[in-house]
Amino acid sequence: MELNTYDQRLNKLKNFIEEKEVDLLMITSPVNIFYFTGFYSDPHERFMALVLERNKNQPYLFVPLLDFEAAESHSYVREILTVSDSQDPYQVLESKVGRKPTSFGVEKKNMSLYQYERLNQWSPVRDWIDIEGFITSQRISKTPEEITKIKKAIDMIEEVMEAGRKKVQVGMLEIDLLAELEYQMRRVGSDGPSFSTIVLTGKNSSLPHGQPVTTPIENNDFLLIDMGVKTEGYCSDITRTFIVGEASAKQEQMYNTVLESNQKAIESVKINQPLSKVDIAAREWIKRAGYGDYFNNRVGHGMGMEVHEEPSVHEKNADLIKLGMVFTIEPGIYIPNFGGVRIEDDVYVNEKGEVEVLTTYPKKLISVG
Amino acid sequence: MELNTYDQRLNKLKNFIEEKEVDLLMITSPVNIFYFTGFYSDPHERFMALVLERNKNQPYLFVPLLDFEAAESHSYVREILTVSDSQDPYQVLESKVGRKPTSFGVEKKNMSLYQYERLNQWSPVRDWIDIEGFITSQRISKTPEEITKIKKAIDMIEEVMEAGRKKVQVGMLEIDLLAELEYQMRRVGSDGPSFSTIVLTGKNSSLPHGQPVTTPIENNDFLLIDMGVKTEGYCSDITRTFIVGEASAKQEQMYNTVLESNQKAIESVKINQPLSKVDIAAREWIKRAGYGDYFNNRVGHGMGMEVHEEPSVHEKNADLIKLGMVFTIEPGIYIPNFGGVRIEDDVYVNEKGEVEVLTTYPKKLISVG
Repeated sequence: MELNTYDQRLNKLKNFIEEKEVDLLMITSPVNIFYFTGFYSDPHERFMALVLERNKNQPYLFVPLLDFEAAESHSYVREILTVSDSQDPYQVLESKVGRKPTSFGVEKKNMSLYQYERLNQWSPVRDWIDIEGFITSQRISKTPEEITKIKKAIDMIEEVMEAGRKKVQVGMLEIDLLAELEYQMRRVGSDGPSFSTIVLTGKNSSLPHGQPVTTPIENNDFLLIDMGVKTEGYCSDITRTFIVGEASAKQEQMYNTVLESNQKAIESVKINQPLSKVDIAAREWIKRAGYGDYFNNRVGHGMGMEVHEEPSVHEKNADLIKLGMVFTIEPGIYIPNFGGVRIEDDVYVNEKGEVEVLTTYPKKLISVG
Repeated sequence: MELNTYDQRLNKLKNFIEEKEVDLLMITSPVNIFYFTGFYSDPHERFMALVLERNKNQPYLFVPLLDFEAAESHSYVREILTVSDSQDPYQVLESKVGRKPTSFGVEKKNMSLYQYERLNQWSPVRDWIDIEGFITSQRISKTPEEITKIKKAIDMIEEVMEAGRKKVQVGMLEIDLLAELEYQMRRVGSDGPSFSTIVLTGKNSSLPHGQPVTTPIENNDFLLIDMGVKTEGYCSDITRTFIVGEASAKQEQMYNTVLESNQKAIESVKINQPLSKVDIAAREWIKRAGYGDYFNNRVGHGMGMEVHEEPSVHEKNADLIKLGMVFTIEPGIYIPNFGGVRIEDDVYVNEKGEVEVLTTYPKKLISVG
């Protein structure tokens, strides 16, 4: 019998806590809860946790009372406990467990010092085991099922890019184009942007993460669009840079340097090689063309349920490229007071260990407006 | 000489650390950094912190290298240190401070166990002082300057509500209306939604925090719209429920019960009275009308730089209503498989200690479609 996705994931979690002798495991990050249960909610300041005890076989899920109906219909974990706004969640947890745990397994980057102190009051254990590395190591290798969802999110954003491109006109404001793009994100049926949409033109495009403003799109300027959507819990993230009207020789040279850098980086993605090589391949190309001072960020980041997740693709990351990884490749050149170019693809190290570029939107310099 | 907003806020912070004998204060929550510096950025997994040492007069701000230009132009705190993706931020911090702090003041709900352990390795101090209560007590009383920004965010969202209302047609899908509303949010010049926009019709409207889907708007159904925008760092949050075509007697009765509950709650807002009274005033009215089983959440929440912040307006909150507070009042009746009604206003306890309803969008039952 083939186990379903959640059984497989939960079984690995059980093996992990057995091996590490974690007495009580508690997952509080919403995406990790989604990964293990299929139920997603952002509880804001409210308490939400997936709990697995070593001496019990089945995990259980605490959700805010408000979310009970949604958890009931989406969670693969069937035992659901609610916490109302007037209850103390730690008391609810303590009375459910009914004994003092001898060790805790938690996500150390997601557990707050406040939560730590509350759990410590309950049971002042010596061993706090970080479960984040383990969960990340699971999440970092995407299953074909997950790739299907990521591809769907990419298809959607590319449809949005194309619809947006056709609407660009000289004189249009950055924020008007942004509004149009986000409208299209909804129209194609996504759950909305996976991060704050970036539309930058002219000099603004030299700010890698600038905020769109009321700057009009003008002839002979770069127009940089960096955006993504979420669908079925998975993200896409793509950047294309267009030229409004005609490009100058300098603009064309800048653009081609970035495009070649993007291609060099993609070619450098080899299984079992360090991630740093990808960053260095992109960076060296830009340096060699004389733009070394204008590329000041890492070349990429992992992407999946979160738009930024592991692995980080930077020049000092010696971790190896593994089967199933998905990450962005997004070199850029940003010249202050002149403009910027970024070309960003999403790549996947497929089951054969080959790099597959998931984004398909054309990368040659396209004139708009 | 009148001190500017940031000097005032930073001075209070200095007095606080003096009084509590905090040796090194470190603020890591992006909104709190914005509150004290005027610079906002979501650094995602990167390190960002405002640091104030007791033996020094001026605070300094650590930002990711990428954010340097933006921090330079927006931060009132002038000493800005950068951390690149390949640097260890804790090493940067340690070498800047150049000594081992004797106590730390941190936001315990925002500091992760991972960060705690890193700081603890640096200087294993006994005293970890929670600064969150102090910052909340400052933020909870809005200044007239802040009210102006909140009002601006409310004006924008009410313009969006009105534009959206006019577009509603029978047969239109929930997500199409949502796309239209978010388009309008950009058109009016906001920085986008302050939370995930809610558009629910028919039976879906009985899920207080449901996700908009491809359900068409149909005659004789409720249409619930709950949304807000951000502008200049401040939020709005409003809900109105419309009737498509004509209301049945039951729908009208439900609607009026919620409207009266909303009004009773507003009337109950009295300075120096417990916040619980507001929740109870709303709840009692709904119970008395026989709908007690269908109102299962708190009546409201504070709002400002965050769309959900202190105070929480629930039936057990004995904290007193204070000058300058801004919170929502949003009673509702949600009948499974029938539909839901929510009417949400934003109220302000003004400088005279009187309740002021900041939202102005009409509350009588309006027919659409």
